[in-house]
Amino acid sequence: MQLPIAITMGDAAGIGPEIIVKLYQNQPTLSRGTFVAGDVLTMRRASALVANVSDTVQLPVVQVQSSGESFACPEGCIPVLQVGPALEPVQPGQVNSSAGEFSGRCIFWAAKAALHGELAAIVTAPIHKEALHAAGEPYANYPGHTEMLQAAAATYLNRPLEQLPVRMMLANDELRVVLVSIHVSLRDAIEAVTTDNVLQTIAITHGALEGILGRSPRIAVAGLNPHAGESGLFGREELDVIAPAIALARKLGCNAIGPLAPDTVFMRARRGVAGKVDEFDAVVAMYHDQGLIPVKYLGVDTGVNVTLGLPLIRTSPDHGTAFDIAGRGVADPASLMEALRVAKTLITS
Amino acid sequence: MQLPIAITMGDAAGIGPEIIVKLYQNQPTLSRGTFVAGDVLTMRRASALVANVSDTVQLPVVQVQSSGESFACPEGCIPVLQVGPALEPVQPGQVNSSAGEFSGRCIFWAAKAALHGELAAIVTAPIHKEALHAAGEPYANYPGHTEMLQAAAATYLNRPLEQLPVRMMLANDELRVVLVSIHVSLRDAIEAVTTDNVLQTIAITHGALEGILGRSPRIAVAGLNPHAGESGLFGREELDVIAPAIALARKLGCNAIGPLAPDTVFMRARRGVAGKVDEFDAVVAMYHDQGLIPVKYLGVDTGVNVTLGLPLIRTSPDHGTAFDIAGRGVADPASLMEALRVAKTLITS
Repeated sequence: MQLPIAITMGDAAGIGPEIIVKLYQNQPTLSRGTFVAGDVLTMRRASALVANVSDTVQLPVVQVQSSGESFACPEGCIPVLQVGPALEPVQPGQVNSSAGEFSGRCIFWAAKAALHGELAAIVTAPIHKEALHAAGEPYANYPGHTEMLQAAAATYLNRPLEQLPVRMMLANDELRVVLVSIHVSLRDAIEAVTTDNVLQTIAITHGALEGILGRSPRIAVAGLNPHAGESGLFGREELDVIAPAIALARKLGCNAIGPLAPDTVFMRARRGVAGKVDEFDAVVAMYHDQGLIPVKYLGVDTGVNVTLGLPLIRTSPDHGTAFDIAGRGVADPASLMEALRVAKTLITS
Repeated sequence: MQLPIAITMGDAAGIGPEIIVKLYQNQPTLSRGTFVAGDVLTMRRASALVANVSDTVQLPVVQVQSSGESFACPEGCIPVLQVGPALEPVQPGQVNSSAGEFSGRCIFWAAKAALHGELAAIVTAPIHKEALHAAGEPYANYPGHTEMLQAAAATYLNRPLEQLPVRMMLANDELRVVLVSIHVSLRDAIEAVTTDNVLQTIAITHGALEGILGRSPRIAVAGLNPHAGESGLFGREELDVIAPAIALARKLGCNAIGPLAPDTVFMRARRGVAGKVDEFDAVVAMYHDQGLIPVKYLGVDTGVNVTLGLPLIRTSPDHGTAFDIAGRGVADPASLMEALRVAKTLITS
């Protein structure tokens, strides 16, 4: 039996609703078997907006009562499952606690449905962290999607959070990058570079990519300090923490290489570049910006975020809510489309 | 009166000597008026190596007694000024304290000559920091070129080091990046993000680029934390340190914008990309890898390092000694050529 894919609506004040509409408008085949976990009226307004701006026929938004109904929805319709009470209209581009609360509710709903085996995958439209924060408990406790999905999985499996290590992978045509830590300050990110965390990141990367590639992935491990510490001259984390983690990972059968100089490892890891050998299948990055700067450098249109380590499949575009252009109908759905495409690949692999 | 440009030889065990030979071989016009501050026999061996590997005529290495003689040197010759006693042959790709010591001596010699008005500029071939460290006093005190040049300038001007703030700019066809700190651990780099240091970096960038561009440069200032701290959720340096520095810089007349999310500011700052607006003339980066990962992402062939803030012009290729391929005659001189080209531009601007 084929399971549907839920697309969570994201923050209603951001570009989420409008890029979802464009996804259904531009990709009828790709969007087959998907539905929006969100708010019917918000999606209807987004559909009117996109039709108005692009001078096209307005796609009808159809309220479905269960995820399974999405397969019955005719092409050219947007199936929406109403998650909780209707959301009052919000001002595009403004932090709104109700929008934040609603965005969080959709994620927890989708996580639960996926964990209970009702969904094949979740694709998440962007949320706004300040709005989530403004929403109060329980949403304010979570810096982002990943932590919410992790908490939902821990509850479902009745296991402590620590036993459910999760990592974010960012992928585009050239790079796959897996991060040791994500939404914490750079100071806290340095503290998170422990042998356990690095080893866990390598192991999760190995497990996930072995499934996707069908062979043992070549994993480059970046250093933390400039020039990977240059033998201890600029920091000792490479010697004391990262190299031991790599040694342990290799003992466990991972093909991990490093620690490598952060400023050249991403250039070396580029894949599919004419005249260049594909050196690695993925890079383990020690902190958020180390990995995201190179992934986003050539543009954010086709970057996809994949959550590794959870008992569910989740992808998302690698851009944010883009409050500066939200509500104008001009946002680019390319990264969301790519996220859905990657999710479908992961389902079949 | 035209002044010559010195090319310091770099570490004799690295690719420096061979890429210098290739520069003279491939760029007779560009290399006019330059000479090598180095070791005659090392350069002669490098010339033989390149001739042998590329099956070309071996360029003669001519020992000059003063920098001025380089203009008299006929095309197709490599003028070398012997800096100190001859260096014993060293094993390519091996850390060697004598090579480290010699590489440091060449830099101090060239800095002194430039400060005394005998040189138009210095172009530095790569040194190896471990070799420099192994060379002992005074070289072991300096993490790299920049600090040595700064110390030489401070001595010459009889001013304390603190009054000679220096910054490294990395430039390629798409980006100009100026770094708040360079060769320190990431922990120390965070400590170096002070209002004074950020303000100074913006001011030095403004001054240097105003000279080069002939107008007020648009300077993007990156944040330190993921998403530039997201309003204090992931670190407060943006609110407490970087934003105040930007405000002060703007009061001083600098067109500084930020703090901006580090993971997208470099993508936004790319220049000369079809279909993309040139948003900024330069990015001030908070630490080494934040700035160098994007500069090197597309390749290290054409990246150039420019030292800003000193009373001398100094450029260098943005790659290292490449010990893994040194002594094989296969190293690419493109970045060194670009460094010389940029130095000539800076002389005339």
